Amino acid sequence: MSLPQRIVVEITEMPNLRNPSLICGFPGSGYVGKLAIDHIIEELHAIPFANMFSSSFPPQVLIQSDGTTDLMKNTFYYSKGEPNDLVLLSGDAQPVTPESEYEMAEEITKICEKLGVKTIYTLAAYITGAFSKTPQVYGTSTVPQIVKDFQNYGISLMNSGSITGMNGLIIGVGKRKGITGICLLGETSGYVVDAKASKIVLETLVKMLDLKLDLAGITKKAQDTEHLVKTIEEQMGQRAGVDSLPMPQHDKKLGYIS
Amino acid sequence: MSLPQRIVVEITEMPNLRNPSLICGFPGSGYVGKLAIDHIIEELHAIPFANMFSSSFPPQVLIQSDGTTDLMKNTFYYSKGEPNDLVLLSGDAQPVTPESEYEMAEEITKICEKLGVKTIYTLAAYITGAFSKTPQVYGTSTVPQIVKDFQNYGISLMNSGSITGMNGLIIGVGKRKGITGICLLGETSGYVVDAKASKIVLETLVKMLDLKLDLAGITKKAQDTEHLVKTIEEQMGQRAGVDSLPMPQHDKKLGYIS
Amino acid sequence: MSLPQRIVVEITEMPNLRNPSLICGFPGSGYVGKLAIDHIIEELHAIPFANMFSSSFPPQVLIQSDGTTDLMKNTFYYSKGEPNDLVLLSGDAQPVTPESEYEMAEEITKICEKLGVKTIYTLAAYITGAFSKTPQVYGTSTVPQIVKDFQNYGISLMNSGSITGMNGLIIGVGKRKGITGICLLGETSGYVVDAKASKIVLETLVKMLDLKLDLAGITKKAQDTEHLVKTIEEQMGQRAGVDSLPMPQHDKKLGYIS
Amino acid sequence: MSLPQRIVVEITEMPNLRNPSLICGFPGSGYVGKLAIDHIIEELHAIPFANMFSSSFPPQVLIQSDGTTDLMKNTFYYSKGEPNDLVLLSGDAQPVTPESEYEMAEEITKICEKLGVKTIYTLAAYITGAFSKTPQVYGTSTVPQIVKDFQNYGISLMNSGSITGMNGLIIGVGKRKGITGICLLGETSGYVVDAKASKIVLETLVKMLDLKLDLAGITKKAQDTEHLVKTIEEQMGQRAGVDSLPMPQHDKKLGYIS
Repeated sequence: MSLPQRIVVEITEMPNLRNPSLICGFPGSGYVGKLAIDHIIEELHAIPFANMFSSSFPPQVLIQSDGTTDLMKNTFYYSKGEPNDLVLLSGDAQPVTPESEYEMAEEITKICEKLGVKTIYTLAAYITGAFSKTPQVYGTSTVPQIVKDFQNYGISLMNSGSITGMNGLIIGVGKRKGITGICLLGETSGYVVDAKASKIVLETLVKMLDLKLDLAGITKKAQDTEHLVKTIEEQMGQRAGVDSLPMPQHDKKLGYIS
Repeated sequence: MSLPQRIVVEITEMPNLRNPSLICGFPGSGYVGKLAIDHIIEELHAIPFANMFSSSFPPQVLIQSDGTTDLMKNTFYYSKGEPNDLVLLSGDAQPVTPESEYEMAEEITKICEKLGVKTIYTLAAYITGAFSKTPQVYGTSTVPQIVKDFQNYGISLMNSGSITGMNGLIIGVGKRKGITGICLLGETSGYVVDAKASKIVLETLVKMLDLKLDLAGITKKAQDTEHLVKTIEEQMGQRAGVDSLPMPQHDKKLGYIS
Repeated sequence: MSLPQRIVVEITEMPNLRNPSLICGFPGSGYVGKLAIDHIIEELHAIPFANMFSSSFPPQVLIQSDGTTDLMKNTFYYSKGEPNDLVLLSGDAQPVTPESEYEMAEEITKICEKLGVKTIYTLAAYITGAFSKTPQVYGTSTVPQIVKDFQNYGISLMNSGSITGMNGLIIGVGKRKGITGICLLGETSGYVVDAKASKIVLETLVKMLDLKLDLAGITKKAQDTEHLVKTIEEQMGQRAGVDSLPMPQHDKKLGYIS
Repeated sequence: MSLPQRIVVEITEMPNLRNPSLICGFPGSGYVGKLAIDHIIEELHAIPFANMFSSSFPPQVLIQSDGTTDLMKNTFYYSKGEPNDLVLLSGDAQPVTPESEYEMAEEITKICEKLGVKTIYTLAAYITGAFSKTPQVYGTSTVPQIVKDFQNYGISLMNSGSITGMNGLIIGVGKRKGITGICLLGETSGYVVDAKASKIVLETLVKMLDLKLDLAGITKKAQDTEHLVKTIEEQMGQRAGVDSLPMPQHDKKLGYIS
């Protein structure tokens, strides 16, 4: 008996794309990337073309909204448009072991090579442990020139720390295959599902990719997040504002993971 | 040296079955599925025909009632009957790692293919964290029409959440091989070995499969469970009844795992 | 690049043995089996003939008494004698993952097959959580007749529970290859390194194998254990004796692991 | 689909070296070895010639000081000199699982064989749990004669315990390939990043290898460590000195890991 295949990709249709970029957002802290990628898929009416199953996903099945059940999976979508076609990747979960995270990043970059993807954008969370009234978008890239250009888009730089999980590994593994990687991280407390962080990440991405994307839906959700955070702050002792929270010194100084 | 075989199946006799369904219940919360499957095997005098050993079981041997010892294993049984022949699967344990759970689900569905199994039933627990006087049976399936038919059998629907472990994975992996999967979950607090939940799952299964099955034994055990729960409730402050337990708001709202 | 070999066996000399039995005692609770096997190896002046290295041992090197260092390993010894030759196996540690425990048990039984070993004895601990003045030896076997004969040697029976780790797996894996397995477990509290439990296991083994073995050394260590336990008991509130310890109800009722 | 390569070595230039020794220091307790190896690389202007990537590193990418990002990796350097050429190995992290630590040690020793490395020095930490005014350098080797010679260099001996992680495994795995291994451990409390321990290890290494190495940089950092420790001690109750710390009895008696 041979070892079972740990990753299986089922392709229903291999799209023919023009100079495509990949955008992905795996579920992580605050669901920042996941909310953002699902918003793009919905607004662009992107078309699913492949599922990736893996024995490195959590060992469970998910109940769908119609009452049926299915294995956890990544789903690839495409959207044709100007100036670039897009590949969009939304996952149900991150793999359960470090080694299988590398393996899945490897598989995803292989699919990128087949599709002709030259640039990968990952959408992630920059966790500060504090609620900020003016959250920022942070960025890193595998290419120095892109880092230099970040200021044109109002993206804050990072010069230490790490990006944990798929949103980091995919651009690291892609780099070794000659694919340009860019990670945009929305500042978030890490305490709540943070659509506000997703929204600012999307606003930055729209500028970078010159994308036509209706942000009304995510803006509505971002307002919900703001109300939630306001309620939490009020419960935390009727303090006057964010700046007087007990942990302002941590703001922007903590490590960033996604 | 090659990697050792992680799963070994020892078949003593490959039965010739007519349109068989597989029923299995791996040990999990409340032993709901395990008690149920062992009851069926005993009452139908089902015949063992294969053992599945695996290095992904917990690293221990079990002492049998006669004082001898053996490795942990899954045992397959069959029972010929009307309207369907049945394959029954009872396991000593769940595999110890997520990846080996997928692998074992894969092996089990391969055996299903060889036996011509078209439908897999898994028996599991729906955990609420509260004692209910009128526990219900919940269900999910890989086939939308079966979900719609659940109401004919008094089965409650689920529209979110997950089923963790073998009882979920087997139907998820089977779906990808074209095998219909149905999971029946007996509502249980998760605090005790719950034969009452096993009993209502069996009652539902009997209706769905038009099965002849004496339920006297499990009914007796269910009464024992009821006495145990009553004792626990009395110790929890002589409260008047279940409805006034401190966690009624959780009832039926918690995630369901098995 | 292929996967590295996870187990490497270095044989310096393959002994030619007459009807040999294997005795092994992996380090576990109370070091019961480890102390016992090392006593046998020392007293019989057994001759080392093979080392087993594995990447599934804890990732560390051990400093030897002469200041040099080496990888963790299992060492096989042999001893020629009446009525049987013996193979003796002493390990530095148990493997770190469940799957690698199965794999190592598999490798050890392969070596048994090459040496013509028909019976494997493992020496282990039966943990009660209480100090007993008259600890007993418990036993299990893969062969029903041997279990029946245990009473001739004053060995107590078990009819449920499990034996965790290598001392259990080796006889379970051996059973599937037609090798008879016997596990002798010395009753111990599990709180101290218990040479007293090692001693009673050795006394039983001497009777079963009709072995000539000087027990003076282990008897001395067993007295040290007794003094240690006495001191602990005195510190636990000057209670009168073992029988009035706060956990007598657990005595002999807890699970047995080694 | 085959299993992915877990370790990939990218060699930019295979140097031709004269009787080289390998020196390495993986990140561990107190960063003793890591600070030391990075000091050597910097002072000798050593030339990088190979990177080792592995899916057994922590699943994250590191942000560099220029804002770009890369996978975690080991980097090999060489330095030509008298009397020996040197290979220097600095790693971003230790592998995440025990088995992958063995595997990486195996790969590193393979590279040693290709380069003709006859001796491996690993630089590690000897943890005592106490601050010592006169920390010592401890040593172990795979070769008895080298252990005997340690006194000529003021190196303290060890006769029990273990060295955990890569700094131990590399010399253990190397031993089985006929490569001499030496581990030098700087005494440290384990509570702080300890450049003082790195400095004394480097001083010893300089003597053993007759190395020309400017120690001004590490001496400065060692003074910083001393100031930090002094501050901690003052905060711990204005005690008079190290000898009256609450844990002096632990000094030099604890296990040593790195």
